[in-house]
Amino acid sequence: MAQSDEVRFMRRAFVLAERGLNNTASNPRVGCVLVKDNEIVGEGFHEAYGSEHAEVVALRNARGKAKGSMMYVTLEPCCFKGKTQACTHEIINAGVKVVVAACKDPNPKVFGKGFEELKKNGITVRIIDMEKDCFELNPGFFKRMKSDLPWVRVKVAMSLDGYIALGSGESKWITGKIAREDGHRWRARSCCLLTGSRTVVNDDPEFTARVSGEDVLQPEKVIIDPRLIVSKKAKIFASGKVILATLLKNDKLIKEKVMDYRQKGVHVIELKPKSSQSTQFYFKHLLGALSKRGFNEILVEGGPSLVSSLMTENLVDEFLIYKSSKILGAGVSFVQLNTAKDALTNERQWVFKSVNRVGEDVFMSLRKKNNSFYGLANV
Amino acid sequence: MAQSDEVRFMRRAFVLAERGLNNTASNPRVGCVLVKDNEIVGEGFHEAYGSEHAEVVALRNARGKAKGSMMYVTLEPCCFKGKTQACTHEIINAGVKVVVAACKDPNPKVFGKGFEELKKNGITVRIIDMEKDCFELNPGFFKRMKSDLPWVRVKVAMSLDGYIALGSGESKWITGKIAREDGHRWRARSCCLLTGSRTVVNDDPEFTARVSGEDVLQPEKVIIDPRLIVSKKAKIFASGKVILATLLKNDKLIKEKVMDYRQKGVHVIELKPKSSQSTQFYFKHLLGALSKRGFNEILVEGGPSLVSSLMTENLVDEFLIYKSSKILGAGVSFVQLNTAKDALTNERQWVFKSVNRVGEDVFMSLRKKNNSFYGLANV
Repeated sequence: MAQSDEVRFMRRAFVLAERGLNNTASNPRVGCVLVKDNEIVGEGFHEAYGSEHAEVVALRNARGKAKGSMMYVTLEPCCFKGKTQACTHEIINAGVKVVVAACKDPNPKVFGKGFEELKKNGITVRIIDMEKDCFELNPGFFKRMKSDLPWVRVKVAMSLDGYIALGSGESKWITGKIAREDGHRWRARSCCLLTGSRTVVNDDPEFTARVSGEDVLQPEKVIIDPRLIVSKKAKIFASGKVILATLLKNDKLIKEKVMDYRQKGVHVIELKPKSSQSTQFYFKHLLGALSKRGFNEILVEGGPSLVSSLMTENLVDEFLIYKSSKILGAGVSFVQLNTAKDALTNERQWVFKSVNRVGEDVFMSLRKKNNSFYGLANV
Repeated sequence: MAQSDEVRFMRRAFVLAERGLNNTASNPRVGCVLVKDNEIVGEGFHEAYGSEHAEVVALRNARGKAKGSMMYVTLEPCCFKGKTQACTHEIINAGVKVVVAACKDPNPKVFGKGFEELKKNGITVRIIDMEKDCFELNPGFFKRMKSDLPWVRVKVAMSLDGYIALGSGESKWITGKIAREDGHRWRARSCCLLTGSRTVVNDDPEFTARVSGEDVLQPEKVIIDPRLIVSKKAKIFASGKVILATLLKNDKLIKEKVMDYRQKGVHVIELKPKSSQSTQFYFKHLLGALSKRGFNEILVEGGPSLVSSLMTENLVDEFLIYKSSKILGAGVSFVQLNTAKDALTNERQWVFKSVNRVGEDVFMSLRKKNNSFYGLANV
């Protein structure tokens, strides 16, 4: 088969995979195409956590035609029984002849074992190296598998002169409608939204993902609230699952409050203070706990203190910046750091990944200059 | 002739006009194409102030073929003798049959009179409405002709978090090499660069236009220095023409200082204070004086106090923003205004005109939402 055809089939598998964008976590987004005589005979993608994997959907759709076919799949097929039967088992049983994958599954439970299993059963296995595409579709899954931490995006809406709010704290509406709608798409694909107690107290946001025309699986909501100051009447509790991250304290009153939240269905994560005197915890511990819950991608929408803490601990992977044409003249910045004298001359830590216009505003995404969450060995 | 051919010839005339980008002021950039039997027989553009106009260059290049030809010119031909003979005179003498222009000359000395002169002499005159293109090529000339003020661009290099300098005032290097080179192109096309005395004192810039591989006509340099604090040893005086804008004062010491500057070849503009008690002048008066000197486009590169004053007087036409991916954490903003309570809810005053990546940075230009410096009547 010509190289260009192989890439075309794999691209189709990626297009399918993307349909699961908002629903597959904690699993990755995966797409699959079955080809016979250079024609697609079955397609599938992983629709949602707990449902059939992409490979199995494609096999089912191919009906009798799976036997002797070639499978194009965006990620190495799994080889262990989880919520569903192992994909390798199904592929072998269906009589697939060749499996072409875009990359190895970074999940240590698989990581090449899926390919081994297929080979042992007489199936030819080949990699088209499109790991980068698979990573781009699943940055959170890759990062979590490699480091037990989720992929952290910080969303910022700023004025032309760089402010996220007026001095009064007011921030509605820096950006236009189209930019705000775009922001909701980032919410929808995230496992959780992370914010600070001050944002909840001051702005009382609903913190839901609203994407017009789509019934979106709502991300969970995480509130950083070390002193438990958030009112249970806040709108953020009105729907969906809420997680409160607070400071672990052997204080009777606090224990009661925590108990009370738990009884109301709020998941409380108690984190030990940085030191015995400290009133702060390490965000790395919180993110570790969220990773254990299977959270791949986290969207941070908060004030400068939250963002600065995450940056200080070097935990931010991506900035999503909506830049407005409005000039405020004075206000609050998205981050406050002790400026290093060499901040200007230092090598850049961040690089622009994309720059686009969204309605009246400009959208810019930035990534860390060196990220090492993909780049796995080939088969 | 097909409409598409006409547009093609006019586009060619605009391409030629742009070759004069850095050199024609106080004149506009103009290009001209002569066409006979649907073929170009002569081309020209206005190369520099004082040299032949585009029409005359094209006529000369066409040699014997000008007679009976059609002329495509980006601006109405002039009809008065200035540094050179009136273009209408030359066009009539050469026997041109038809003149197609992109728009009327906004110069009150012409403004339709050129077309009248041609018509009176049996030449067919037609407008393809490309006034917007002519305006884009000559925003300063259009604005100056309509309002006796130059087109004011404010150039800003800012960090990701919106700062133009560290708290210490240090600002080298927020943006990368390619962005800085791009900035020099904006300098090169400007009639003058405008900055504040504090920038001169703190940064001691040369303030020249350095465009690699090009011998650039240097813009003049204007220093806002109400208290005459700038040292004559500053690098800004090392080359080119310098204008000092200062406060008019009946003070012997000041008068002596002014005299001293003038003897050193510095052009001093003395501006009366806003009121008898004030130590400030109206920037509108300064810009009026610069307009009288024939300055079409002005590039402002200064600190927040200069930019804020210009904005408060509503004198800025365009922002050129270079956005870096560097995060400073704290610093100085490009503007400091008394934030209006309704800054967030007000209708936008600025709109993004272009957004591009330049090397490691992002370039964004913004214009006033409603500018009325073009939109002249047709013939």
